[in-house]
Amino acid sequence: MNFEYTEKVQELQKKLNDFMDEFIYPNESLYEEQLSKAERFTYVPPIIEELKEKAKEKGLWNLFLPESEYGAGLTNIEYAPLCEIMGRSSIAPEVFNCAAPDTGNMEVLVRYGSKEQKEKWLDPLLNGKIRSCFSMTEPDVASSDATNINTSIVRDGNDYVINGTKWWSSGAGDPRCEIAIVMGKSDPNAPKHEQQSMILVPLDTEGVHMKRTLPVFGYDHAPHGHAEIEYNNVRVPAENLLWGEGKGFAIAQGRLGPGRIHHCMRTIGAAEQALEDMCKRVSEREAFGKKLAEQGVIREWIADSRIEIDQARLLTLKAAYMMDTVGNKEAKAEIAMIKVVAPNMALKVIDRAIQAFGAAGVSNDFSLAAKWANIRTLRLADGPDEVHRRAVAKYELRKHQ
Amino acid sequence: MNFEYTEKVQELQKKLNDFMDEFIYPNESLYEEQLSKAERFTYVPPIIEELKEKAKEKGLWNLFLPESEYGAGLTNIEYAPLCEIMGRSSIAPEVFNCAAPDTGNMEVLVRYGSKEQKEKWLDPLLNGKIRSCFSMTEPDVASSDATNINTSIVRDGNDYVINGTKWWSSGAGDPRCEIAIVMGKSDPNAPKHEQQSMILVPLDTEGVHMKRTLPVFGYDHAPHGHAEIEYNNVRVPAENLLWGEGKGFAIAQGRLGPGRIHHCMRTIGAAEQALEDMCKRVSEREAFGKKLAEQGVIREWIADSRIEIDQARLLTLKAAYMMDTVGNKEAKAEIAMIKVVAPNMALKVIDRAIQAFGAAGVSNDFSLAAKWANIRTLRLADGPDEVHRRAVAKYELRKHQ
Amino acid sequence: MNFEYTEKVQELQKKLNDFMDEFIYPNESLYEEQLSKAERFTYVPPIIEELKEKAKEKGLWNLFLPESEYGAGLTNIEYAPLCEIMGRSSIAPEVFNCAAPDTGNMEVLVRYGSKEQKEKWLDPLLNGKIRSCFSMTEPDVASSDATNINTSIVRDGNDYVINGTKWWSSGAGDPRCEIAIVMGKSDPNAPKHEQQSMILVPLDTEGVHMKRTLPVFGYDHAPHGHAEIEYNNVRVPAENLLWGEGKGFAIAQGRLGPGRIHHCMRTIGAAEQALEDMCKRVSEREAFGKKLAEQGVIREWIADSRIEIDQARLLTLKAAYMMDTVGNKEAKAEIAMIKVVAPNMALKVIDRAIQAFGAAGVSNDFSLAAKWANIRTLRLADGPDEVHRRAVAKYELRKHQ
Amino acid sequence: MNFEYTEKVQELQKKLNDFMDEFIYPNESLYEEQLSKAERFTYVPPIIEELKEKAKEKGLWNLFLPESEYGAGLTNIEYAPLCEIMGRSSIAPEVFNCAAPDTGNMEVLVRYGSKEQKEKWLDPLLNGKIRSCFSMTEPDVASSDATNINTSIVRDGNDYVINGTKWWSSGAGDPRCEIAIVMGKSDPNAPKHEQQSMILVPLDTEGVHMKRTLPVFGYDHAPHGHAEIEYNNVRVPAENLLWGEGKGFAIAQGRLGPGRIHHCMRTIGAAEQALEDMCKRVSEREAFGKKLAEQGVIREWIADSRIEIDQARLLTLKAAYMMDTVGNKEAKAEIAMIKVVAPNMALKVIDRAIQAFGAAGVSNDFSLAAKWANIRTLRLADGPDEVHRRAVAKYELRKHQ
Repeated sequence: MNFEYTEKVQELQKKLNDFMDEFIYPNESLYEEQLSKAERFTYVPPIIEELKEKAKEKGLWNLFLPESEYGAGLTNIEYAPLCEIMGRSSIAPEVFNCAAPDTGNMEVLVRYGSKEQKEKWLDPLLNGKIRSCFSMTEPDVASSDATNINTSIVRDGNDYVINGTKWWSSGAGDPRCEIAIVMGKSDPNAPKHEQQSMILVPLDTEGVHMKRTLPVFGYDHAPHGHAEIEYNNVRVPAENLLWGEGKGFAIAQGRLGPGRIHHCMRTIGAAEQALEDMCKRVSEREAFGKKLAEQGVIREWIADSRIEIDQARLLTLKAAYMMDTVGNKEAKAEIAMIKVVAPNMALKVIDRAIQAFGAAGVSNDFSLAAKWANIRTLRLADGPDEVHRRAVAKYELRKHQ
Repeated sequence: MNFEYTEKVQELQKKLNDFMDEFIYPNESLYEEQLSKAERFTYVPPIIEELKEKAKEKGLWNLFLPESEYGAGLTNIEYAPLCEIMGRSSIAPEVFNCAAPDTGNMEVLVRYGSKEQKEKWLDPLLNGKIRSCFSMTEPDVASSDATNINTSIVRDGNDYVINGTKWWSSGAGDPRCEIAIVMGKSDPNAPKHEQQSMILVPLDTEGVHMKRTLPVFGYDHAPHGHAEIEYNNVRVPAENLLWGEGKGFAIAQGRLGPGRIHHCMRTIGAAEQALEDMCKRVSEREAFGKKLAEQGVIREWIADSRIEIDQARLLTLKAAYMMDTVGNKEAKAEIAMIKVVAPNMALKVIDRAIQAFGAAGVSNDFSLAAKWANIRTLRLADGPDEVHRRAVAKYELRKHQ
Repeated sequence: MNFEYTEKVQELQKKLNDFMDEFIYPNESLYEEQLSKAERFTYVPPIIEELKEKAKEKGLWNLFLPESEYGAGLTNIEYAPLCEIMGRSSIAPEVFNCAAPDTGNMEVLVRYGSKEQKEKWLDPLLNGKIRSCFSMTEPDVASSDATNINTSIVRDGNDYVINGTKWWSSGAGDPRCEIAIVMGKSDPNAPKHEQQSMILVPLDTEGVHMKRTLPVFGYDHAPHGHAEIEYNNVRVPAENLLWGEGKGFAIAQGRLGPGRIHHCMRTIGAAEQALEDMCKRVSEREAFGKKLAEQGVIREWIADSRIEIDQARLLTLKAAYMMDTVGNKEAKAEIAMIKVVAPNMALKVIDRAIQAFGAAGVSNDFSLAAKWANIRTLRLADGPDEVHRRAVAKYELRKHQ
Repeated sequence: MNFEYTEKVQELQKKLNDFMDEFIYPNESLYEEQLSKAERFTYVPPIIEELKEKAKEKGLWNLFLPESEYGAGLTNIEYAPLCEIMGRSSIAPEVFNCAAPDTGNMEVLVRYGSKEQKEKWLDPLLNGKIRSCFSMTEPDVASSDATNINTSIVRDGNDYVINGTKWWSSGAGDPRCEIAIVMGKSDPNAPKHEQQSMILVPLDTEGVHMKRTLPVFGYDHAPHGHAEIEYNNVRVPAENLLWGEGKGFAIAQGRLGPGRIHHCMRTIGAAEQALEDMCKRVSEREAFGKKLAEQGVIREWIADSRIEIDQARLLTLKAAYMMDTVGNKEAKAEIAMIKVVAPNMALKVIDRAIQAFGAAGVSNDFSLAAKWANIRTLRLADGPDEVHRRAVAKYELRKHQ
């Protein structure tokens, strides 16, 4: 395993950090201010589009997408430290066109999209002109087991007709979101993992009903949002199907590897930022006659945080390295492991930081509470912890059979 | 230790549970609906006042307040199981006039208020006509060490003049909130724990500036709210001082015992409700070919939750029993212990329930996320965990000296 | 729930504590010294029999055995605080004739023994003249599931013939141990929980082969010992059968309730003693310029220990109270809970104490390491943690069905 | 960071694994058998010396010792995976002449020894002819703070005279142990970290009194042993001093880096072995109608173990890499981190394996209990966890000052 950051990566790290310092951190509060001025989910703070232009100019654009003509041509191990930096600010990933769920959706289109699908949807996504969502989980079933998914995708002449209710279609609240990738059952009688298909559904198609957005703890995550969408007799041309009927599971597997590791990288950046915030705060404040930073219990929080972050980062780098060298499939155990490790680690680190900040920590004067809520969803999204642990155990036990 | 619920208590439990079933649970969503219709912090959902009337009629009113002519005459051990029931719904405590910070403030007025102060402020509070807030912590200092508090309360003729900035004045957002108890320094040269005083400040006094309310993990907790208040040359008559100059610390100590145990009792109720919700949910949903309730890992969550709740309840009952029999002061170690135990326990239980609910758990379709956020503040409010642990250790070490 | 210690109990506590101070603690090292002088498992330190005589004289004898003409007539809630005191010293329980597995075995004989069985085995056990063992678990199967047990008990004329290998027959190493209660299968075709029987087997019967004793983390626990015993065509008279054929499971259930709670009580005493030791040690030693007792991290260990012990004790008292008032069967959830809680709690407390003692803690200069090893077995004995958690979850889920 | 195992390392791994399979694992029980036949601490099982010869022949000898003419010339990152393999069996490290405390002592002699000291002590150690011990901690002071150390080393003519009591001089019980490195105070008036010196003391010098060996839990670790040694007016020639007066602390620091990382590597091997044992055991045994390996809770133990081991290994490799590339001093934070991580991780993994094995796990039929006890000492040896956490926090806080 070679985790050395190459010269190319080190340069990008520097450029990215400079950009963060110059453009991202100083505009975080402006973003909030602009956002607060209009009705939720109708308005994107203009600073975002301004920053996207700047990022494009600097060549900090589409850094994700390994082994692809479309992206920056970085491997996962090269992208990891850059993605981590983006994870330090909640507004950063979008500025660099590296935000979920677009990155995952672009990957799907790159790998499984037809020429026409690419022209129509991939190009504007790569250019940051539109946004997208991913409609997978459903309110009525335990979606941690994807075979439970119930939405139907039925062939009817030259069309497919879609019926079902999805939720947690993240990003669908954004006025710029134009396209959904919908997963559903196209053949309930096929073998278990070939019943599902994925299909592209423009959000302005008749029958697409955006019921509401769901909050995460008390955050609505506007303009992004997590939508509940009813698909009522939604009819799209047959050529909107991705790859082929029955390929839904295979695409989901292909999509989830990179999607999961990006989440982990950003999560590590968020934890690193929280630790930094904690160290600074406790160095300033005093209680019971000495700096908080001099109190043994708080020192233990700092030490444990550093230890946990470093371990999670190394395991994430290992997973990235394996994805690059032996492929996403061979790296599945490692991907499952970091999917458990990174969010749990970050939640602990951020919780300690909140505790060190006192009541300020649960408010929005600092980013800790929002980060915590956001990362709490990652113990559920793309498979809950317990399902990933099951998988890790299964691979481990197989070694001895 | 006798934790037996007397016949009186059992009757009250029954009455209270019946009331919860008939009036509280069915109206939780109406409350949210009414609340969502008006501007935040300008409007109290009318269902609350209707329910208060009903509760009064049923004699379920002011059940807190031990050893007092004003309350229901219940001891702490008698009130505990009732308070726990109220903790199952976030709208319940107010309906029974048993909500923080009013209960704590009423206790202060009962114990330390003058006859005039009682007439003016205690009576309307006991009748549920007005609400109150408690202005203690400050943004500029680590308020976990109360000697850091900086707001000044200076005698000037027949008045006191107050200057300083307070935050987390919970309840100050409520349009019905009329009075604040403010803690500040009246004599910076007195011995360390005699520098502070507490004073009653009507919120409509000139110079009281409500800057904003602070959210908790995205929740604004309207209409209640957690306010940041500037006191700029706020002048109140000298008779508004509570007990006497330099008595601030002593009052705070007296106030915090009952306040803390009430929080713990409600927290146990919230955890109990979350466990119940989890058990029901996992009995309905299926994944990987069997009910969630039949999966070993989830059974472990349930078992650990039951074990932790029962232990926390018993320790809380013990603290209540000691407060009743040997007094709040002798019970200080036990109060500190439950202040650490109850919120940490409940956060674990609720977090497991959230995990069992899947993404639904972090939304507001269920009460879990809101409960979690609310209880997370209790690891900070009224003294952070680490300060209470310090205290417990101090008492323990003393036994061996 | 009334956990109040009655006057009778308070008197017994005082007598017991005085006895501990006068006779037990001062003789712990003499016991070790005497033990070290002879070959293992051939010799009982004479101080034990001397102390037993003294305990008998003082009336501190057979304090266990609730609701029985044979014991001291104490209820479980009365016995709990006394048993806890005995748990503070590893030599104490035997001195008061309250040591496992004799207590459990005596309970079995009281409840299920015939008049003849009682005369022959119960009387000398109650008098402390002989000792006994319990032969249940087997090396070849996962004995956590008692239906796996394989030893056969076959009727042959007026005899039963026993074949099988048992291990962890604790106490069988003691030269005074004369009788085993053996569990085995008498009818493999009966319903699952009626296949088993229990039978009394004198250890000098032909075919009883004591293969070896098993150490626990390096401790041989001589003279007590944990024996592996082969039963090769062991023939005993039919009247040695307990209660009746197929009653093995029912007896095991009846035996385990009290046995488990006694273990828990003693475990709490051991934890309490460890916390006391830790407090004293850290008050004496200095590092980095101040007493260990003044270091925040160590204070947290002390606080958490106090908090955990108190909670475990209260839950154990609740289980005892329920056993007394609604019976062992109704108390099964509570017994399962404390069986998980008490050993896990004590292991944490003792481990912290070891850490606070430094390397001395892992040696035998103090009792911590031996205590830890001993209590570690309790997470396995009488059902492993995970089986008890399963049971607790099952009872909990049932409430909502 | 490049953690890639080079071809050289891969070959050594293979050779080492083959040797383990052929000679080490099959002789573990023979070692125990031979050991059990003679009086403790008088006898070394002859199989050890036989295996040492074989290891020498195969070139698997002195693989430790980076950057040195004496060793195999491996870097830390190269030695790490080899040392891990040795950690899988308690008898392996000595067979390859890579056992503590000899490795640490040899490093001291290589770095700080004079030509004469090397000839006299280093050569026979490198050849495996003699063994050595390290006399640092003292029973009367908290030795976690090395400035507390009290033993005196006083110049007297051409000699030094040593007085003091040391304990945990590990390895001093071995009949082949000939030399001790003793740390003591040579100048109580010098600056705090220059008061100490280290000196070579042959164990047959007059005044060296081996009081006893200390057990670890119930294990005596014969023939190695952990000795308490009184140094009563022990007189050695002045040339036995290492490096120079006042250099004791500096040597200790230099010694501890490699010593600590070797412990961590071996610990990871021990954990890996325990996980393997657990996976095999649970695949064989059944309870409640299915294989233990199919029960969710046990799968979680396996998954968590795999996740924790992999993270600890990566962090250890990072520390090794830093020691190789930027030096032990720059790697001090990473060394402190793994010193906390590796033993705590291994204790958890092994404890889970014990639980999965049932009562067999606490016995000596399997190596789990012995491993656990041994590794428990590593949370204390070479600095307790809490001191290393303090250090990690200190380095972290410095980044922000």
